[in-house]
Amino acid sequence: MASEVREIGVGLLGLGNVGSGVVKLLAENAAAVEQRLGARVVVRKIAVRAAEKRRLVDVDKKLITTDVNAVIDDPSVEIVVELVGGDSEARDYVLRAIHKKKHVVTANKALLAIHGSELFALAESKDVDIYFEAAVCGGVPIIRALREGLASDRIQELRGIVNGTSNFILTAMTDEGRAFEDVLADAQKAGYAEADPSLDVDGIDAAHKLAVLCLVAFGAKVNFDDIYVEGLRGLAPIDFEYAKKFGFIIKPLVIARAHEDGIEARVHPAMVPERWLLASVSGVNNAVYVSSAALGNSMYYGRGAGMMATAVAVVSDVFEVSKNLLAHASGARPVRGVPTQKPLPIRDMGKLSTRYFLRFAVLDQPGVLAQIARLLADHQISIAQVVQEGKRAPDKPVTVVILTHEARESNVRLALAQADKLSSVVEKTRLLRIAE
Amino acid sequence: MASEVREIGVGLLGLGNVGSGVVKLLAENAAAVEQRLGARVVVRKIAVRAAEKRRLVDVDKKLITTDVNAVIDDPSVEIVVELVGGDSEARDYVLRAIHKKKHVVTANKALLAIHGSELFALAESKDVDIYFEAAVCGGVPIIRALREGLASDRIQELRGIVNGTSNFILTAMTDEGRAFEDVLADAQKAGYAEADPSLDVDGIDAAHKLAVLCLVAFGAKVNFDDIYVEGLRGLAPIDFEYAKKFGFIIKPLVIARAHEDGIEARVHPAMVPERWLLASVSGVNNAVYVSSAALGNSMYYGRGAGMMATAVAVVSDVFEVSKNLLAHASGARPVRGVPTQKPLPIRDMGKLSTRYFLRFAVLDQPGVLAQIARLLADHQISIAQVVQEGKRAPDKPVTVVILTHEARESNVRLALAQADKLSSVVEKTRLLRIAE
Repeated sequence: MASEVREIGVGLLGLGNVGSGVVKLLAENAAAVEQRLGARVVVRKIAVRAAEKRRLVDVDKKLITTDVNAVIDDPSVEIVVELVGGDSEARDYVLRAIHKKKHVVTANKALLAIHGSELFALAESKDVDIYFEAAVCGGVPIIRALREGLASDRIQELRGIVNGTSNFILTAMTDEGRAFEDVLADAQKAGYAEADPSLDVDGIDAAHKLAVLCLVAFGAKVNFDDIYVEGLRGLAPIDFEYAKKFGFIIKPLVIARAHEDGIEARVHPAMVPERWLLASVSGVNNAVYVSSAALGNSMYYGRGAGMMATAVAVVSDVFEVSKNLLAHASGARPVRGVPTQKPLPIRDMGKLSTRYFLRFAVLDQPGVLAQIARLLADHQISIAQVVQEGKRAPDKPVTVVILTHEARESNVRLALAQADKLSSVVEKTRLLRIAE
Repeated sequence: MASEVREIGVGLLGLGNVGSGVVKLLAENAAAVEQRLGARVVVRKIAVRAAEKRRLVDVDKKLITTDVNAVIDDPSVEIVVELVGGDSEARDYVLRAIHKKKHVVTANKALLAIHGSELFALAESKDVDIYFEAAVCGGVPIIRALREGLASDRIQELRGIVNGTSNFILTAMTDEGRAFEDVLADAQKAGYAEADPSLDVDGIDAAHKLAVLCLVAFGAKVNFDDIYVEGLRGLAPIDFEYAKKFGFIIKPLVIARAHEDGIEARVHPAMVPERWLLASVSGVNNAVYVSSAALGNSMYYGRGAGMMATAVAVVSDVFEVSKNLLAHASGARPVRGVPTQKPLPIRDMGKLSTRYFLRFAVLDQPGVLAQIARLLADHQISIAQVVQEGKRAPDKPVTVVILTHEARESNVRLALAQADKLSSVVEKTRLLRIAE
């Protein structure tokens, strides 16, 4: 007798680490899933670039194809899982899938950061689901928490550590006092950083994730290119020494806040108080700290990446989409609140008001501190603390560190541009923002 | 023309703090909800004990009744939100609601800890939803994370701080070095602890939550009375001093771990390493740290209680239940994995293997340490560190603190029972478990 159980067909685009993990988890959880859903989730086709490549998981060769459209167009495939990465090809595939009324699960943050609004709008018009838990911090169910757990709340601010490689590097610099280049080289050897580390250490990956978070948290369609992005390359061991002295830890943060006139969205290393929860998020781990009107502060922590962590997130989405499918309740509602996806401008970074850590390298001569203090005062920047180190060698510059009270970024930049022109200031002044 | 929008009727049992918050959030989010669900969520009836009492929120008097059954039986009520608390009356109400095929949202941990299995079984047989995000750590969406985010993962261990009052008290004892009774009195004055603080400081509330977590995390029907529960009353400032010396912080933990032969489930104050994330969860905040096979470690943090935090959780459940309703996809599936709700025994506490902090008060005379060390060795307890303080006064006992390697709880108890009979041991020996 043939089985009466409803089958839900899944097509995979990509069978790398994450794809293999997905195949493995679906197989391992087949019985549990069937019991929960009353249906079977079955992988029907998998598109790969090279059919003969060895895989991390055993799959029936008949499922493998090098033709992406053969997966998307297969009438038995109801859910397309996009794991090819990048934002160009992937966009074509996902658009085609939506047009064919296939539901989409994707782990692709670049795709959503750049083309999210277009894809969500199309999906909504076609009553198709797009789920993307794995796109932001694989092991942290932050998208689900924002979409569902906080559904009736109003989110005010998000602060997060969303790039594991960057956090690994800054954790090592904090703990071991080593230089950025050294730690990066080690991270590359250990496989925690890519040969070309730019996506990670220059903040681009984090900015992709921030754009997706803005979409979900604020229902805001933001222009990805407007996000302020600053990477890790300028950080020196001396910054970590001073951070410690002042009770801070330097962390690779993404920050987003809703304002009347737009969204504040920025990616940069920041000093955080060492007793704050985000300061304890170390190594390759990720966390997102959410401040909302009713709930107050909450935090979601876990492994940022890794084959199985990302696969768990993808599979949880496949379950949700399957549940919607079985319930005839599909239809992408990626965002919260009303109106959905209003195009909100990203606020000019100059308008930012925060506290700053400023590190000046100056000649040890009378009047320098007075000059700098005057410059800051002229720009409405008020000083909270000053530390001037004793002279180390007669011909070497001395370090002056100033912690400011809240000041406007545009004023700080103007002041530093002038300071850096002073003959007594011998290096470009280091600016680090304080987040608390 | 009459509105064509589908309405979903909600009935509230209870209109205290949380109930008022729910009414407020539903009103404030009405437009957003309608846009998301394509339906209107409407409060139809509210049962209260005293109809004339002043409320925190304005409600139409026609909605108020003192007859609970009038709410449950109202044909226009599809979702019953149970906010009366306690486990006896609430059980009757929820059973009646399920029998009448009403979906249930509850914030009642005692009810679920004691009668959860009975209620879930009935709900499953009637295809009725029971949702209960607010029952465990109001502001932390831990139930949703376990049910959905980790759906394809296998949970190995949970460790959590789930009682805000206890955490508030231990945080103050850590930071200020004060005695338990002092801090408790202050907490009572500030409204952070009840006049009868027993539910909180004796670990009962935490044990209720732990029972619910076991149900969701392991699909395990545990016997609530078998959970090992130890409260805070035995803790003295000296324990916090030693904790600090050894790099630990004392936290009010719940711990659950799946073993072949049952569930390890325990509630007690424990020493945690000060660099571990749970050590940074302070004040009235809650957090649950989850270890699972695929995801590794993840943590969920937020406000444990409070009117609006709990209300947000209740309302998020009302949305989920509404979604299921609209999709004709109702039917309680509170637990994960296969088989659902197998009755799993709670493992005997004597089988526990962990590290211990032992604080002995002994007479300062030759041979005492040797005696204690011999006793421990005789019970296969191996010593990791010993600290003996110098004599403080000739007639006063001295303190000997021993940190053990992993040892079996039954052996430790036997050894301490014998130690406490030694003439040189002048106080009951203090035992604190170490969690790391």
